[in-house]
Amino acid sequence: MDILEKLTWRYATKKFDPAKKLDERQLDRILRATRLSASSYGLQPYRIIVIEDPAVREKLKAVSYNQSQITDASHLIVFARHDQLSPEHVERYVENIASTRRLERSQLTGFENVMKGTLNSLDEERAANWTGKQAYLALGTLLTACAADGIDTCPMEGFDAAAYDGILGLKEKNLRTVVIAAVGFRAAEDGMQHAEKVRTPLEDFVETV
Amino acid sequence: MDILEKLTWRYATKKFDPAKKLDERQLDRILRATRLSASSYGLQPYRIIVIEDPAVREKLKAVSYNQSQITDASHLIVFARHDQLSPEHVERYVENIASTRRLERSQLTGFENVMKGTLNSLDEERAANWTGKQAYLALGTLLTACAADGIDTCPMEGFDAAAYDGILGLKEKNLRTVVIAAVGFRAAEDGMQHAEKVRTPLEDFVETV
Repeated sequence: MDILEKLTWRYATKKFDPAKKLDERQLDRILRATRLSASSYGLQPYRIIVIEDPAVREKLKAVSYNQSQITDASHLIVFARHDQLSPEHVERYVENIASTRRLERSQLTGFENVMKGTLNSLDEERAANWTGKQAYLALGTLLTACAADGIDTCPMEGFDAAAYDGILGLKEKNLRTVVIAAVGFRAAEDGMQHAEKVRTPLEDFVETV
Repeated sequence: MDILEKLTWRYATKKFDPAKKLDERQLDRILRATRLSASSYGLQPYRIIVIEDPAVREKLKAVSYNQSQITDASHLIVFARHDQLSPEHVERYVENIASTRRLERSQLTGFENVMKGTLNSLDEERAANWTGKQAYLALGTLLTACAADGIDTCPMEGFDAAAYDGILGLKEKNLRTVVIAAVGFRAAEDGMQHAEKVRTPLEDFVETV
């Protein structure tokens, strides 16, 4: 498996084959890959919601400009950030580090205070942008891991995030929809899979100092 | 190459081996992978600056809490977003699509107007967040592509972005530093490579609807 070939193979799949579904192992692998994504301090300030229910998918489609990927893809993956990153979120994380690595909780006090200080310094809007960016990093991990496994994806921003929060009951869980990805397998008739990739020429995209 | 094994192998490398450098092919591959990253509308509203110059690296280290990765890693990669996404940026992109895919420019007028409308609707702060998120998505692609190729990385937010802009002369180029990644090879003595990975348990991280 050559990652560069796989990334060349991937494209924003607009037409999925509704008959082709990820099997359990495939789904498990891409969720585990997303979970392994890097995040600031390792705080993972977001959650993944996997939408399988066809009725829920129909509702979401209606608030996503009726894009067919929402219902045709094998799975719809919603990235939702924690809206309030509480001190308790940090504390659960620190407890997780301590138990996973068999450390004394007190050895992590310095790190804990740094994280709490950072969260404390962010107003609501900056916090939302910061947690949102971590979710986008995870989206990049998901898209690349899917490509590596030969699974198609379509990352999407064209939807009503507040309506998603309502349909999925996210507000009550302190979550807010950031970005979504349809995941599945391309329809054979989707001509876009054969279209030449359009990217900024490498010499314009990269500068070396 | 199993992507899940590779992502398990990766960790935020704090100690790089300063003697180990990416060769030309390795560097070229990870830059091409980053260039293939998905972005909203395909607009790629950011650029990549690869810092090799040791003197520049020293200056950047001084405004990055003196973290050793800045100078010890093989390469330092800066993600910089376009600060003003002008109509001309959209037009260059549309021309690129037309020439790459041998289309008439007029066939793309609808798409062009949608993009211009979106950019027009964003105030300065929202535009900065939107372009910044695209850069984070590309960072996720870079980190995963590096892992796939057995290359170590350390994504970093702990630096003075305005100072980076000054040292690298980015303002004059309508660019602003968003996030950086040190890229290279882990030092053999870095104990963190053996530490157990800490992540939110899968059952808490993922919800299925």
